[in-house]
Amino acid sequence: MKTSSALRFLPQAKLPAGFRAAGIVAGLKASGKPDMAMIFSDSAAVLAGTFTTNQVKAAAVRLDAARVANLGAAHGIVVNSGQANACTGKAGLRDARAMAAHAARQLGVAPEMFLVCSTGRIGVPLRMDLILPGIEKLAAALSPSGGENAARGIMTTDTVPKRHTTTFTVNGKTCRLTGIAKGSGMIQPNMATMLAFLLTDAAVDRRALQRALKAAVDKSFNRISVDADQSTNDTALMLANGRADNTPLRPGHPDWPVFATALEGITFRLAMDMVRDGEGAQKLVTVHVRGARSAADAEAAARSVANSFLVKTSWVGTYPNWGRVMDALGYSPARIHEDRVEIFYDKLRAVQNGLKAGASITRLSKVVAKKQFTLTIDLHLGRHAATVYSCDCTEEYIRINK
Amino acid sequence: MKTSSALRFLPQAKLPAGFRAAGIVAGLKASGKPDMAMIFSDSAAVLAGTFTTNQVKAAAVRLDAARVANLGAAHGIVVNSGQANACTGKAGLRDARAMAAHAARQLGVAPEMFLVCSTGRIGVPLRMDLILPGIEKLAAALSPSGGENAARGIMTTDTVPKRHTTTFTVNGKTCRLTGIAKGSGMIQPNMATMLAFLLTDAAVDRRALQRALKAAVDKSFNRISVDADQSTNDTALMLANGRADNTPLRPGHPDWPVFATALEGITFRLAMDMVRDGEGAQKLVTVHVRGARSAADAEAAARSVANSFLVKTSWVGTYPNWGRVMDALGYSPARIHEDRVEIFYDKLRAVQNGLKAGASITRLSKVVAKKQFTLTIDLHLGRHAATVYSCDCTEEYIRINK
Repeated sequence: MKTSSALRFLPQAKLPAGFRAAGIVAGLKASGKPDMAMIFSDSAAVLAGTFTTNQVKAAAVRLDAARVANLGAAHGIVVNSGQANACTGKAGLRDARAMAAHAARQLGVAPEMFLVCSTGRIGVPLRMDLILPGIEKLAAALSPSGGENAARGIMTTDTVPKRHTTTFTVNGKTCRLTGIAKGSGMIQPNMATMLAFLLTDAAVDRRALQRALKAAVDKSFNRISVDADQSTNDTALMLANGRADNTPLRPGHPDWPVFATALEGITFRLAMDMVRDGEGAQKLVTVHVRGARSAADAEAAARSVANSFLVKTSWVGTYPNWGRVMDALGYSPARIHEDRVEIFYDKLRAVQNGLKAGASITRLSKVVAKKQFTLTIDLHLGRHAATVYSCDCTEEYIRINK
Repeated sequence: MKTSSALRFLPQAKLPAGFRAAGIVAGLKASGKPDMAMIFSDSAAVLAGTFTTNQVKAAAVRLDAARVANLGAAHGIVVNSGQANACTGKAGLRDARAMAAHAARQLGVAPEMFLVCSTGRIGVPLRMDLILPGIEKLAAALSPSGGENAARGIMTTDTVPKRHTTTFTVNGKTCRLTGIAKGSGMIQPNMATMLAFLLTDAAVDRRALQRALKAAVDKSFNRISVDADQSTNDTALMLANGRADNTPLRPGHPDWPVFATALEGITFRLAMDMVRDGEGAQKLVTVHVRGARSAADAEAAARSVANSFLVKTSWVGTYPNWGRVMDALGYSPARIHEDRVEIFYDKLRAVQNGLKAGASITRLSKVVAKKQFTLTIDLHLGRHAATVYSCDCTEEYIRINK
């Protein structure tokens, strides 16, 4: 079995066999940047998906969730930015369905075999007058080398495209897995304004694919925090078209572990790209809580710190403001004992027994000044741990969102 | 019975009979601004207090909470800024006790009859070398007209002093009630970095005072949100020295209602001062949720909107970004049905049945542009309501806290 370290991950959107993609300018953005993308598998692919837990769900989320549950197969995905098509009622659902149908028509597949994703402003109707011609343009532009364009076509406030590719071997056949994603604001645990598409030419059993996707999302996209807001549109979709002609992967298959490792490697890299590219963010901070009484406590404590705006703004500077970390632990729902808490900045101990420990401010400041560091918090109350990935909150975040 | 409208509230710190106060520069702040304050009642006063619910509690909070519970009486309060004296362990508790004792010594009262409040950076020891001389200076400066100085002495990132005074009649005798407070960041439900002192010359039964204070705090300081962070030091203390010589107020006393109204009027005004003076804030936004299935749902929905950084940053501009309000409702723990939600900006309906309603963006923008407006959200699921007071989040918030 290949281990994670044996897999090579490249920051590219090199599509697996049988997939084509495109990204174009449909005119939905005032900036004139690419604003639509399409992904298409020439043969029907096994489909899996996970969606926002927000009670307010965009039309595309409703449509796709039903198709994941009822059909479990798809040919393609069409994506627009500019309008989220959320809080748009029945008209919004009709528009989402029309988008899928129009895309399917161009490619000669059944309308239900296309999925739709939207991102942008909530509460305004889709510009169907621009989207329908955009779909035609996309269909004409589909290409096996179109992954990069698709990765750019789904960007919103993202400053860089987010895509990774890896290969692995199943039954001696080389399979490829490509992920592309977007998302840099409204990001918090439980899939917030992010879209991610995972594509593979491996054959995977439908239920196993859904379980693997959910597990990978839980360890990646559900572990990052930019601003603690959860979106109405979050979607991760996975298509496995089986072009590698392997015996379908499922737990128990000798090559299942390498597939699961590849998938987790891709989703984790995409998630790290998102938090690094958090709106206005300049730093990636790993918040690791250990010694919690329960798994729920570990996660609650890590999220409380990772989501605190006072903690996040303190990271903009270089002062190791561990008092704000203590404060955020104290108001989290997790049980803590102030006088047991231990806090490390990378390897340097800042707090022991809830009190300032040995490391000097100067040395701690050097850690906080880094583009990337780890805050380790030991609650010394039990054996449970959790990790959340966060970023600093700069003035730029406010400028982007005001 | 006097009604609230019959009471006059003045933005002054005119002390009730028998109280003296002072505010001075002890040298704790690099800025050279006032950084210590003292309040003193010449006779022992009945004492009530409410404190942060953070599991990490400052030394002063531990000390004061014990004195409120065990003694229920006090002569005075001494306050420092610069250091929070939180996460300072036993040494911190010793310092807090020494502060109280030194103050008591100057005034010739028992050491337990003094309370202490601290605000400032967490995790650094109190500068006792500056604080002890500061206490002597404070004791010497105490004056019946020192309320304004005390209000300035407790300011940190506050841009304006916060104090209100009213008078009311008990048993035909005129009583005065004065409140002074500080707090403009780390403010969220459940008493976040805020200090408030309520002083009256009315005689009030101890248990009744505690209950009245808690009720007033719940309707005021616990209803505001600046940044969703809860501090380790929040404290509201109330002293009633009985100089008015009335029969002690308690529920059932014919003048209890006017006292309760006066207290709620003062705490509410102080709370509104805090949110208006939120770090970097330019707007006061009242978030009123009605039609919730339960009181808990109403509060959760209101807090989710009032605490959302995407909602708060949207208020910096003038675009009525009700989509972000829908989003925040959707991820709140409160049950909502997207297709029943109705949202008003002041009197203008922006959303009906979860969809864009009649009011034009231009008209809604005029409301969002105001220094103060009310967002009313009707969930149309039940009969429960809640109100939370919030503010916009500007780049200045980040500048202050980074």
